[in-house]
Amino acid sequence: MTTQVIVLNGGSSSGKSGIVRCLQAVLPDPWLAFGIDRLIEAMPASMKASGEGIEITSAGAVSVGAVFQELEAAWMEGVAATAGAGARIVIDDVFLSGRESQERWQKALGGLDVLWVGVRCDSEVAAGREIVRGDRAQGMAAAQAETVHRGVVYDLEVDTTHTESLECARTIAAQVK
Amino acid sequence: MTTQVIVLNGGSSSGKSGIVRCLQAVLPDPWLAFGIDRLIEAMPASMKASGEGIEITSAGAVSVGAVFQELEAAWMEGVAATAGAGARIVIDDVFLSGRESQERWQKALGGLDVLWVGVRCDSEVAAGREIVRGDRAQGMAAAQAETVHRGVVYDLEVDTTHTESLECARTIAAQVK
Amino acid sequence: MTTQVIVLNGGSSSGKSGIVRCLQAVLPDPWLAFGIDRLIEAMPASMKASGEGIEITSAGAVSVGAVFQELEAAWMEGVAATAGAGARIVIDDVFLSGRESQERWQKALGGLDVLWVGVRCDSEVAAGREIVRGDRAQGMAAAQAETVHRGVVYDLEVDTTHTESLECARTIAAQVK
Amino acid sequence: MTTQVIVLNGGSSSGKSGIVRCLQAVLPDPWLAFGIDRLIEAMPASMKASGEGIEITSAGAVSVGAVFQELEAAWMEGVAATAGAGARIVIDDVFLSGRESQERWQKALGGLDVLWVGVRCDSEVAAGREIVRGDRAQGMAAAQAETVHRGVVYDLEVDTTHTESLECARTIAAQVK
Repeated sequence: MTTQVIVLNGGSSSGKSGIVRCLQAVLPDPWLAFGIDRLIEAMPASMKASGEGIEITSAGAVSVGAVFQELEAAWMEGVAATAGAGARIVIDDVFLSGRESQERWQKALGGLDVLWVGVRCDSEVAAGREIVRGDRAQGMAAAQAETVHRGVVYDLEVDTTHTESLECARTIAAQVK
Repeated sequence: MTTQVIVLNGGSSSGKSGIVRCLQAVLPDPWLAFGIDRLIEAMPASMKASGEGIEITSAGAVSVGAVFQELEAAWMEGVAATAGAGARIVIDDVFLSGRESQERWQKALGGLDVLWVGVRCDSEVAAGREIVRGDRAQGMAAAQAETVHRGVVYDLEVDTTHTESLECARTIAAQVK
Repeated sequence: MTTQVIVLNGGSSSGKSGIVRCLQAVLPDPWLAFGIDRLIEAMPASMKASGEGIEITSAGAVSVGAVFQELEAAWMEGVAATAGAGARIVIDDVFLSGRESQERWQKALGGLDVLWVGVRCDSEVAAGREIVRGDRAQGMAAAQAETVHRGVVYDLEVDTTHTESLECARTIAAQVK
Repeated sequence: MTTQVIVLNGGSSSGKSGIVRCLQAVLPDPWLAFGIDRLIEAMPASMKASGEGIEITSAGAVSVGAVFQELEAAWMEGVAATAGAGARIVIDDVFLSGRESQERWQKALGGLDVLWVGVRCDSEVAAGREIVRGDRAQGMAAAQAETVHRGVVYDLEVDTTHTESLECARTIAAQVK
């Protein structure tokens, strides 16, 4: 069996995208990086601040509407088809609904060999990195740090609080078949 | 019949991405914007300057290798599956191989209702806009202006030389079913 | 006399930054590009949505507070000193207060040889380009198209409605001494 | 005496810009962030790959030419004038010539109250973060990690190897008068 998809799940500012770039650098084969942030960019600007799309409050709470979820479900099918056609894919996502989010991915990726990775970061440290980034609603990191992991089952977990992205990526890469 | 996919083909700096944003703004339904530039971003950094990936000479010539084409083919399958799952999609691409590129898309999108759009721009004007952008290899616009359209069959063509992106988008939107 | 500073004034989405990049490309000497957007980026994130800093309404109206104006005045002194020390500078600004904005620049740049350029664009066309950009508050282009030119005196004016940035830049470059 | 300028010096990927954003967030007054990366952006595109401008080899070595240094010297005068006119400024720079670079800043900022800060990061960790960023020439971080500090005298030094940007910023802020 060969790992076809790596799914990274973690809160905002937990360090997922840095790990993704490192994974692409350390894994011997070429892996495509897809992520929820890229899906949001692909949506019409009008979806980014509407009840049907995605809304982020000034306190950093995120809510998504029905149209967003339909597009997301179709995108998940597309990711699965891309992997099914032979491209290796690393996904970074924020499981806003915890276990339920994972179940949606499991359904979409059914039949593919998936490595599930939890990316954790101490809530206070993540909040500090949110300031460093400067482009995120303050509060999102703290709000998501724990909730996105509720009921989710992983093959392995990494914690970026005291560990560099590159080292986390190497730990994950060692589990890729 | 409902249009499920819009494919825009045109050379570098011909104005495709501006038209895409306008299409997303003027079309009543939410359309996802996928494009070859996003695919390249999703690839490992090492693919962006290698014989197996994509190479851009200082004169603006682009060549792609075998690994790039495999990933691209898998991505096309994914785009088709996303559309098949119900999301409406607008793609912007640069048909480096003209008709052959179109045939690859036709094969991937088989069974879907596609609107094929050629985006043209006078070669000299496109070269000027390349300077305006400031982030493209000089020469790419001129090199691609004609070649990407060779043998390609369109439902409609727009020309951004003297027409604003928004007006081009309205012309295209009028053909969407 | 040698032109030391070029000041471009025009509304949002009138095409100033494209002209700046073309000026840098066509002028034989190296010119530094400074602009009001870069100043805003240099400010703390907290200034970008506060009564003391800069506020942009959803309708695209812009208002600036006392602290913003103090930082702006100090920055203008810095731009003048950079030019006085021998660097040639092209500035792009939005004269929110029309003639009064120009008078502030005239005071700061006193003693330097300045070329004043008005950048115009038909209000409706600028509004269309605002959609193309996708990252600006809708309405700003239309709101500013006329007001920023009120009472301002220019050495020359260019109009991007039907003229490419590169051609506008060549027209301006021909007036540089 | 009131601190008017903070100068941060450190190698590529040592964490300077993250500290700058945190300083802007934690310091009570509004501070403008200027830096060498913004100066390079302000230069014509043609300066970014020429013997007279700035050249970066594929191994990450950086060399700057005579024209670059003239523009840089004029920019330093401008930064000093901006501070002299009352704006508080935090600069992030890479002292390619170590002590000599500091002497140029000392000359330009003469008469102003400056806080000199060294930003260090273990060479191997910085090299890892360079991969995370994904947009830097590999090798620059390692090449600069030690050399930029040669002969430079600081008021305080911070080390991002095991300390978050926000905590480093708080340490620096405590020294601001």
